[in-house]
Amino acid sequence: MLLGPGDDAAVLRPPAGHDVVWTVDDQVEGVHFERHWGWEHVGARAAAACLSDLAAMGARPFGLLLALHLPPATDGSCLDAFGRGLGDALAAAGCPLVGGNVTRHPERVAVSLSALGLVARGRALRRDAGRPGDVLAVTGPLGLARLGLAAARAGRLFEPALERARHALLRPRPRLDLVPVLEALTGADGPGRLAVMDLSDGLARDLPRLALASGLAAVVDGARLPGPPPALAASLGPGEADPPALAWLGGEDYELLVAASPSLFERARAPLGLVAIGRLEAGVPGRVTLEGPLAGRPHLVGFDHFAGAPGA
Amino acid sequence: MLLGPGDDAAVLRPPAGHDVVWTVDDQVEGVHFERHWGWEHVGARAAAACLSDLAAMGARPFGLLLALHLPPATDGSCLDAFGRGLGDALAAAGCPLVGGNVTRHPERVAVSLSALGLVARGRALRRDAGRPGDVLAVTGPLGLARLGLAAARAGRLFEPALERARHALLRPRPRLDLVPVLEALTGADGPGRLAVMDLSDGLARDLPRLALASGLAAVVDGARLPGPPPALAASLGPGEADPPALAWLGGEDYELLVAASPSLFERARAPLGLVAIGRLEAGVPGRVTLEGPLAGRPHLVGFDHFAGAPGA
Repeated sequence: MLLGPGDDAAVLRPPAGHDVVWTVDDQVEGVHFERHWGWEHVGARAAAACLSDLAAMGARPFGLLLALHLPPATDGSCLDAFGRGLGDALAAAGCPLVGGNVTRHPERVAVSLSALGLVARGRALRRDAGRPGDVLAVTGPLGLARLGLAAARAGRLFEPALERARHALLRPRPRLDLVPVLEALTGADGPGRLAVMDLSDGLARDLPRLALASGLAAVVDGARLPGPPPALAASLGPGEADPPALAWLGGEDYELLVAASPSLFERARAPLGLVAIGRLEAGVPGRVTLEGPLAGRPHLVGFDHFAGAPGA
Repeated sequence: MLLGPGDDAAVLRPPAGHDVVWTVDDQVEGVHFERHWGWEHVGARAAAACLSDLAAMGARPFGLLLALHLPPATDGSCLDAFGRGLGDALAAAGCPLVGGNVTRHPERVAVSLSALGLVARGRALRRDAGRPGDVLAVTGPLGLARLGLAAARAGRLFEPALERARHALLRPRPRLDLVPVLEALTGADGPGRLAVMDLSDGLARDLPRLALASGLAAVVDGARLPGPPPALAASLGPGEADPPALAWLGGEDYELLVAASPSLFERARAPLGLVAIGRLEAGVPGRVTLEGPLAGRPHLVGFDHFAGAPGA
């Protein structure tokens, strides 16, 4: 960063031989978070959600801009806690906060984060790079953040036994740790091509996007989905006691979804911690067929922020 | 732009020898705009406010990201009109829309725009570059947007006689047209140094920022402020019939405030359309002394978005 907060704009100097990757992500109180979750967590998870988009492009963080909407009566200590959570998440990612804007809002807090990342020239990882026969895989467990949301709705967010679900909801980890591995696999000297996107809205909504962008259909085996531990899921009641469905529907896990040729999948499996869940094939673009325990359940659609609030 | 909307992030390739300039600007319904002003204007002025920050850094537009908060009941035709106004303003600026994010919001529309610009390496124009003895100048008339706001509050926004004030409020022009001139004046072969910022919050609030950043005091002659035509101001009632005060307090004019040595001011005056309003001098950093018709009026403070809504 050449010039940080305080002028009309920040100034940065991208290193030679790089493209810049640029994304924006919004978090609205009552839609994406509730303030009783804790301001520090609100700041940390907003940063994670935004930085996850950089990981999904194979990019290293370059800088972040904060736009914050604040009701006039917001307590200064809330702002301090928010800043601490945001700052911790950015420090962990090696991402400088280069500026921002704070605006009065009559009703509720909202956070809009814009992030810049750097990727070697021409090496951004796109979701339209899938090919027929590619293995579909994910980089870690799914559905835990949805369990955390269920715990929050039930007023049980801070129960000790639900720590894993709470952590997934409040302190998600953007998979920036995988960027060096992705660079090695797909760089100028690497073996090949990957289609990558991050799982922010859940497999049920995100996988059709990758398939559609690649012009392909997808097949998913519900038995292979890495869902939450059954005992943890069951502890939140019968409505959540279905790990494959949780893994399929759950959003905000911020793991990566990857499509790779079978041979590249074998090379990438250990370094990326991949779990194979299905395959891409020729067919109606964007259509997903569920096999195994999820087959024949037509209502398995993902979470829609336009349809319901997490705290409602 | 290498990759536009539809992936996890946009990808851009900054040309060699350039720095990137990066800013974010927010517009909240009921704070910065009212929907009865017209959705097309809401889109256009949001773009202008954001692009103005690039002009103030001497940067050319490189791309824009849109984050939009929409109440569930928002009519699709409103969105179309908003997009048309935004698109027109971006096309006029030669700035591509490279992506964005649309989020449900329970109460009101908000627009957060993030813009990237390009500036020759090391040539960004900063507000901390003022020196003692610099001439302070502005690039055009001030106070017209404030008159437009007064017209809107009085329910007279669309009166034909108020066209100039209405246009200033609804269709402000970011001074990107001046960027080539600024480049010529301050580039590697140019004669010198300029401190520049844009006037978004009004001289009363913005000038102390430039002075403070430069570690200097400022003196402004109220008689030289390029305020609105007295007849236009008077037509909005006695509360607005004071052109120097309007020019001093008015926000959202998006002209540039410039500090230049007397010799550079003489060279820049015609090509930038400068009007001299005062000078920088040694003194308490950020302190502004008003001379002429505004002298001795201690309550001349600028508009504060945290203190009042334009439509209230």
